[in-house]
Amino acid sequence: MTTPRQPIEPAEALSLVLENARLSAPESLPLLEAVSLILAEEIPAEHDLPPFDRATMDGYGVRLADAGRSPRVVAVVPAGRPVELVLEDGDAVEIMTGAPCPQGVEAVVKVESTTRDGDRVRLPSTLERGRHIVARGSEHRAGAPLLSKGARLTPLAIAAAATAGRATVRVIPRPRVAVISTGAELTRPGEVRVPGRIRDSNRPMMAALLLESGLGEPSDHSVTDDRKIIDETLRGILAGEPPPHVLVLSGGVSVGRFDLVPEALLALGAEVVFHGVRQRPGKPLLFARLGERLIFGLPGNPLSVLAGFHGYVAPALRRMMGLPATRPPFSAHLDGPFQTTSERHQRVLAEVTSGADGELIARPLIGKGSGDLSAVQGANAYLMFNPGHHRLRAGAEVRGEWLK
Amino acid sequence: MTTPRQPIEPAEALSLVLENARLSAPESLPLLEAVSLILAEEIPAEHDLPPFDRATMDGYGVRLADAGRSPRVVAVVPAGRPVELVLEDGDAVEIMTGAPCPQGVEAVVKVESTTRDGDRVRLPSTLERGRHIVARGSEHRAGAPLLSKGARLTPLAIAAAATAGRATVRVIPRPRVAVISTGAELTRPGEVRVPGRIRDSNRPMMAALLLESGLGEPSDHSVTDDRKIIDETLRGILAGEPPPHVLVLSGGVSVGRFDLVPEALLALGAEVVFHGVRQRPGKPLLFARLGERLIFGLPGNPLSVLAGFHGYVAPALRRMMGLPATRPPFSAHLDGPFQTTSERHQRVLAEVTSGADGELIARPLIGKGSGDLSAVQGANAYLMFNPGHHRLRAGAEVRGEWLK
Repeated sequence: MTTPRQPIEPAEALSLVLENARLSAPESLPLLEAVSLILAEEIPAEHDLPPFDRATMDGYGVRLADAGRSPRVVAVVPAGRPVELVLEDGDAVEIMTGAPCPQGVEAVVKVESTTRDGDRVRLPSTLERGRHIVARGSEHRAGAPLLSKGARLTPLAIAAAATAGRATVRVIPRPRVAVISTGAELTRPGEVRVPGRIRDSNRPMMAALLLESGLGEPSDHSVTDDRKIIDETLRGILAGEPPPHVLVLSGGVSVGRFDLVPEALLALGAEVVFHGVRQRPGKPLLFARLGERLIFGLPGNPLSVLAGFHGYVAPALRRMMGLPATRPPFSAHLDGPFQTTSERHQRVLAEVTSGADGELIARPLIGKGSGDLSAVQGANAYLMFNPGHHRLRAGAEVRGEWLK
Repeated sequence: MTTPRQPIEPAEALSLVLENARLSAPESLPLLEAVSLILAEEIPAEHDLPPFDRATMDGYGVRLADAGRSPRVVAVVPAGRPVELVLEDGDAVEIMTGAPCPQGVEAVVKVESTTRDGDRVRLPSTLERGRHIVARGSEHRAGAPLLSKGARLTPLAIAAAATAGRATVRVIPRPRVAVISTGAELTRPGEVRVPGRIRDSNRPMMAALLLESGLGEPSDHSVTDDRKIIDETLRGILAGEPPPHVLVLSGGVSVGRFDLVPEALLALGAEVVFHGVRQRPGKPLLFARLGERLIFGLPGNPLSVLAGFHGYVAPALRRMMGLPATRPPFSAHLDGPFQTTSERHQRVLAEVTSGADGELIARPLIGKGSGDLSAVQGANAYLMFNPGHHRLRAGAEVRGEWLK
């Protein structure tokens, strides 16, 4: 049996987690696997952009000297098929949007502003140099950076990388996260439940949190409260090819006889950074490291797992991915009176919506028990309370953190 | 050559799109593929929750009559292993968090409040009935709905479904979306670019938009501006097993000679709902239907593709998935003077951040040209302008829409 040390404050726990969360090593990934990740290289333009004087309208490429005249149409230039000619006064080319202007084209005139007559085209009486042409290299010169190291790969940045001819990019990848439920009382989904057991809801929830947030690639394991089986499972996970960067366990971290996770971690050579945080829910939270690998032991109550994920695991994963670890809290107004008492820092799930004049309205969600997940399923935020007794009126201002 | 009809207003275009976007047919999916989707069935509790009187602390299950006494510890009850006995006065059981209380247990006393002495345990002088026990069925009765039809499968809802023993759930699935770039000037990523051609950035961008938003399963095709190849490609896509629910094409919808998409769609039997919207960018936007299938023809300029996705494709996909089609606009203040003129409704990409006192600050992002994607890659919102001339001072209030 291990005894938690004196619980530490949540802010201290978060800094200890973030101190140990290192930026992940860059990897090359196919462009579409890199969406939303942070770029670990600069991407230069592979050539001038645009790579040629580009027509931006369907119409005619003309000489300025032919304003008000009817030059002869000597060629058609579709997009993608450059035409090798040098345009001279008295001649014009029919040209399509996106097509390269032949040499000598001084302006493009929209088809709607012209009148075609056989092989001749009547032009307006005034022409403007460079009209409806984007000059070669006017957006970017060959070799100039299109995307900087550290840029986030938004869909627009993905388009820019594709423009630079990239099919793969070097990025900070998502950490691989092994998600493990412990507890002899657990039955897997799809298995027949036997008396005295409950369904394992923590593992699917943790995997769902990772999938929804895009913060990690979840892998999935089950364990029992048997020490030997926990040891074997952890060793198997760590020997994986490739092994996970982060292990998140639920259950087995309190002070009970069968809470064997701390011992199993110590036996593996893990260093426990802290065990116990002055918070509710989730006081027996354990955080350990094994080399560069981070290990979170979350108390088995589903709401403790959720709070542990949002409060500590997600910030660590964001830091590893090169993203801001935490997001600024917000202020909201209570939709009704609310009171709560705890000698620990408290997170209360809430549904926060926008009021008529744009201010945020918070409705705390309280289930019938710690396992009452259906009452809180619509939560999109936490309300954060300092230790103490809070007796709040409707409209009182409260501090919140978004779930995602 | 097809001629667009008179352009319609963006609001009318959006209603026409949404009128044609039907809720997708429900499908059964494995739990973790259903994250964030809308539930198409009610999920009842498969048994009482909790399924037994559950200890919520590690400690001793006791009789109230033994307050202040030292009953004999007759058994150990771990989680997951029910013990068949009926507790009588003078006896106690050692019990673990999550374990089922044997019959006759009236309260659980925390291990920290007791003193063990051999096979006896010293109890506090006052005991409270039901303390540290969650009674069977107190959260939910067997058969009572844990999740309602129409609920969104948040991670907490996934946990609730797992609690109900579900390994699969019936949900409104993501539409399958075929993403097609047209244009003879396009080179695929990884291919050697030939003179007169540019890289295809629209297809990766559209796929990235779908992946980032979780609004569709993208599939990916290339085409040229050759009418026969466009026809064959579209027929091949529609004959897919399974075929896509939505086709999004970029390019080929203006009035140029080589803009063959409208003709190709008509030849397939598609009904063009509208072609041309009074907006900038993206005026030649085309929307068609082929049976229940929706077809979007977005102008080939990357910023038109982006605006077409956010303005029309994403709302249609959200409607098909049972989500609110659009999100409320927000107000922000310009970070500096800004002017813009257009006779059409205009979307301007912007980076919107929170100011010191929580108000939103908008910085319009203007590239050097319509293909200058790197200048706008950090955009997280559009600023929306009505037709006309706008000359705005720093701090002026503008209306915005988030990109996601």
